[in-house]
Amino acid sequence: MDKVEITEVGPRDGLQIIPHIVPTDTKVALIRALVASGFKRMELGSFVSPKAVPQMADTGEVTARLGPLPGVRGMALVPNSIGARRAIEAGITDLLFVISMSNSHNRSNVRRPTEASIEDLRTMLAEIDPDRKLTLRIGLATTFHCPFEGVMDEGKVYATMERIAAIRDGLEFSLSDTTGMAMPDHVKRFSRRCLEGFAGRATFCFHGHDTAGYGIANVLAAWEAGVRSFDGAVAGLGGCPFAPGATGNIASEDLVTFFSRMGVETGIDIDQLLEAGKIAASLKGAVTSGHARSIPRERLLGNGVPLQDAA
Amino acid sequence: MDKVEITEVGPRDGLQIIPHIVPTDTKVALIRALVASGFKRMELGSFVSPKAVPQMADTGEVTARLGPLPGVRGMALVPNSIGARRAIEAGITDLLFVISMSNSHNRSNVRRPTEASIEDLRTMLAEIDPDRKLTLRIGLATTFHCPFEGVMDEGKVYATMERIAAIRDGLEFSLSDTTGMAMPDHVKRFSRRCLEGFAGRATFCFHGHDTAGYGIANVLAAWEAGVRSFDGAVAGLGGCPFAPGATGNIASEDLVTFFSRMGVETGIDIDQLLEAGKIAASLKGAVTSGHARSIPRERLLGNGVPLQDAA
Repeated sequence: MDKVEITEVGPRDGLQIIPHIVPTDTKVALIRALVASGFKRMELGSFVSPKAVPQMADTGEVTARLGPLPGVRGMALVPNSIGARRAIEAGITDLLFVISMSNSHNRSNVRRPTEASIEDLRTMLAEIDPDRKLTLRIGLATTFHCPFEGVMDEGKVYATMERIAAIRDGLEFSLSDTTGMAMPDHVKRFSRRCLEGFAGRATFCFHGHDTAGYGIANVLAAWEAGVRSFDGAVAGLGGCPFAPGATGNIASEDLVTFFSRMGVETGIDIDQLLEAGKIAASLKGAVTSGHARSIPRERLLGNGVPLQDAA
Repeated sequence: MDKVEITEVGPRDGLQIIPHIVPTDTKVALIRALVASGFKRMELGSFVSPKAVPQMADTGEVTARLGPLPGVRGMALVPNSIGARRAIEAGITDLLFVISMSNSHNRSNVRRPTEASIEDLRTMLAEIDPDRKLTLRIGLATTFHCPFEGVMDEGKVYATMERIAAIRDGLEFSLSDTTGMAMPDHVKRFSRRCLEGFAGRATFCFHGHDTAGYGIANVLAAWEAGVRSFDGAVAGLGGCPFAPGATGNIASEDLVTFFSRMGVETGIDIDQLLEAGKIAASLKGAVTSGHARSIPRERLLGNGVPLQDAA
């Protein structure tokens, strides 16, 4: 049976744009519910400026309260070496470092050009991880489409990725459709090019949004290109505060349902995930999205319900 | 440039499930706005029992009030020869006749088994159209998935279609994902099989729903198989009163935007369509769906908006 890895990003990517600050207790409960659903990889939070993103100021405390999560890789977003040091102190060595492929979006996101972010990554790794104990996922924001620049030039993005990959082997690249405006042919062609071109040097996942309704189409395109790792957010929470019009991440429930119906093993228990989704949906200020949550459970996996029962 | 035909089904498939009866004036205004958007083919209503579907009781009046629509093929759904005669009297010769590929759904929809509907189509055409002046689209409901029977057997569906195609050459088959639960691989494989197997005998379109978020993925799958005609409903109105959990049709706005971004000519003016969508969305009791309507116009076609303007 084919398998797919689904990384739950709701506790970071989802909660960071909720205008209200979610209490630490609630975050811990949500993460525990998601762990119970079977996720083996999850974004737990970020170590960024508490002034810029107060929603994530308690990530260290969340991590401490959670304690060890056997068999689960807890990840944290870090924007620079200061954040990376804080993450390591909190016991997190799976880091997500975001670099926008579009200069405009990188400037909007972290107030510096893309090349400065790459240089910062290089310096940071040399400083804090000379022994290569960290696991790095590079979030390649606006891989396909930028809210400011439009459709991205594939050759330029690939060349930028080459410069990042040159920093060290073994990085994981997250091909990210930040705006949800990527087209499936673009996703499939570019994913294939990357998997071939970086074979043995880097691994890949796909991070999408369903803003324009292309979410599942793009997931399928990446899957067909050979990508076997995808991001989802419980209840379709999320978006990007620096990408106007970019709404929720692809809902984890939609990913699990879709892959299950494809006959692909996700390792996620949909019933427990739907329960976790109720916690997410009940958060003050949460904007949820996704489809599976609105489909009656007995029909969710595409089974029939006999006519006499359904009438 | 590749071209695609988009048939607007909102005035029939969309309005029929709104619990309130939309005034004839409003229907005429909506249809005129859709014609102005550039649709060359549209479901104007249905000639069914006014008791069963009171929302469509004024289809004859709507047609009369509209008068000739040069260059536009106005279609009407008919369930039997009585309806067909009424449609012809109203000047409509483009008919949609729905037959469910699933017996359970056909029984739920029109209270008889699939074979009885096929026999009725045969009798009706012999009676009222010996000279073959009518144009027939056969809406193959539950082609892929049935709310009662689950995933449909491709061989059985194909065999049923063969029996329908034997009635006369030149029918158009609407491969319909009534529940929105069809999987893209199924849609692509079966569409390809049909296009090949019925080549020269029948033509095809795809009718989908975005219930599970697979709408655009399935449209792309059918397109890749060679289908060049698709149904959409303005503002994502619609559903199926006899298919529990089946929500809106794929929004026409989403189809137009997606195909435009693929470089495929739709013939539809997105701005005028968005205006028509406002009429649809303002209808009392309307449940709208779709994505494009929520994306700022300047970003809708995937162009960039310079950073200084966006900030």
